[in-house]
Amino acid sequence: MSQGGPVSTGTPLSPTPRSTVRRLGDRARTDRAELYAVLDAGLVGHLGIVLGDAPVVLPTGYGRDGDTLYLHGSTGAATLRAAATGAPVCFTVTHLDGVVYARSAFHHSMNYRCAVVHGNARLVTDSAERLHGFEVLTEHLAPGSWSATRQPDRKELAATALLTLDLTEASVKIRTGPPGDDEADLASPVWAGVLPVRTVVGEPEPCPLLSEEIPVPDRVLSRQV
Amino acid sequence: MSQGGPVSTGTPLSPTPRSTVRRLGDRARTDRAELYAVLDAGLVGHLGIVLGDAPVVLPTGYGRDGDTLYLHGSTGAATLRAAATGAPVCFTVTHLDGVVYARSAFHHSMNYRCAVVHGNARLVTDSAERLHGFEVLTEHLAPGSWSATRQPDRKELAATALLTLDLTEASVKIRTGPPGDDEADLASPVWAGVLPVRTVVGEPEPCPLLSEEIPVPDRVLSRQV
Repeated sequence: MSQGGPVSTGTPLSPTPRSTVRRLGDRARTDRAELYAVLDAGLVGHLGIVLGDAPVVLPTGYGRDGDTLYLHGSTGAATLRAAATGAPVCFTVTHLDGVVYARSAFHHSMNYRCAVVHGNARLVTDSAERLHGFEVLTEHLAPGSWSATRQPDRKELAATALLTLDLTEASVKIRTGPPGDDEADLASPVWAGVLPVRTVVGEPEPCPLLSEEIPVPDRVLSRQV
Repeated sequence: MSQGGPVSTGTPLSPTPRSTVRRLGDRARTDRAELYAVLDAGLVGHLGIVLGDAPVVLPTGYGRDGDTLYLHGSTGAATLRAAATGAPVCFTVTHLDGVVYARSAFHHSMNYRCAVVHGNARLVTDSAERLHGFEVLTEHLAPGSWSATRQPDRKELAATALLTLDLTEASVKIRTGPPGDDEADLASPVWAGVLPVRTVVGEPEPCPLLSEEIPVPDRVLSRQV
């Protein structure tokens, strides 16, 4: 759960050269609230970093506090170590919302929401800021867990790198709606439409080592993703 | 739907320096069938490419034929154009399978399956291979659609770049199961376990321009993701 404050305000997304949506620009959104919404709705982002001369893209958990994105990972991870030096990164969160069936193979598509953030990550070293960041990350992944569970100890904190990425240079692209078939294909006897795709949660599965006397708490029972 | 042939055979995944799982190596899988399974289960991957000195990570559709991954995109997309020059790329597919609730904040985690492919993309120029690649891509996104819908015409083909990426250098990482809490926390009165997460399809939504006489075909009705 993000600590984002009001999402209906904020500066519009800045169209810098690399955050300008060039392809299918009608799918671009410039409202900062839409950036927040796409980020807040996800649990896994994909962090890109250059190692040597090649890109590496790895799934990464995250959390948002206002215009700050928190990322964390093991201090031993090469990508995190590289990002911590202030090298340029790209962080992308994508939601698949539907498979778009068209009357032509070419116009098959997907409905989706995607946020792309460009920037240079910063390694957080201040103890209080680090603890705040870990709280944001934990609460994004598992709302209510930070105060309900044991806080990180010194050894755990030492093993974890915390990075921030400012939401300064970002773009949002969203596709919704039916297929965009050519006029000439509209009379074709082929079914066209959208098969919606969504993410749902199942029944909580207690840890085998858990006492049966401990019930599933509301923070888990009421969790949606 | 991938044209992958038997998935229980094949050479093991090669541990090159960049495809070696360094963190939490017990989550690494080396069976090629597991790579195929993770790729085949997804619809959206994240393609990383270096533009200038910065990484760009964009969601990308794909399809698999044996050990060849097909990617496509507009000939106008900067990332696709860069990949088409043979620059190094990284292509990552991740499935979120569950939120792992632990007795400590630190051991909160996610269950997931992730495939990471490193390599240099190749621009396909041969007409027959291009048509085959587009068929693989269409059938992966929407099984049955290639033969049921209008094939791409010359203009559509000209607007689309097709790339291949060999599944030569790849790694698979999978986390399953309950939280890995510290021994000392096991007696804590805090609920621990997994909240499963999965992707499901909803009711097909016909295109508003579709004749009501055209029923939803089996290829859509029976589609799972």
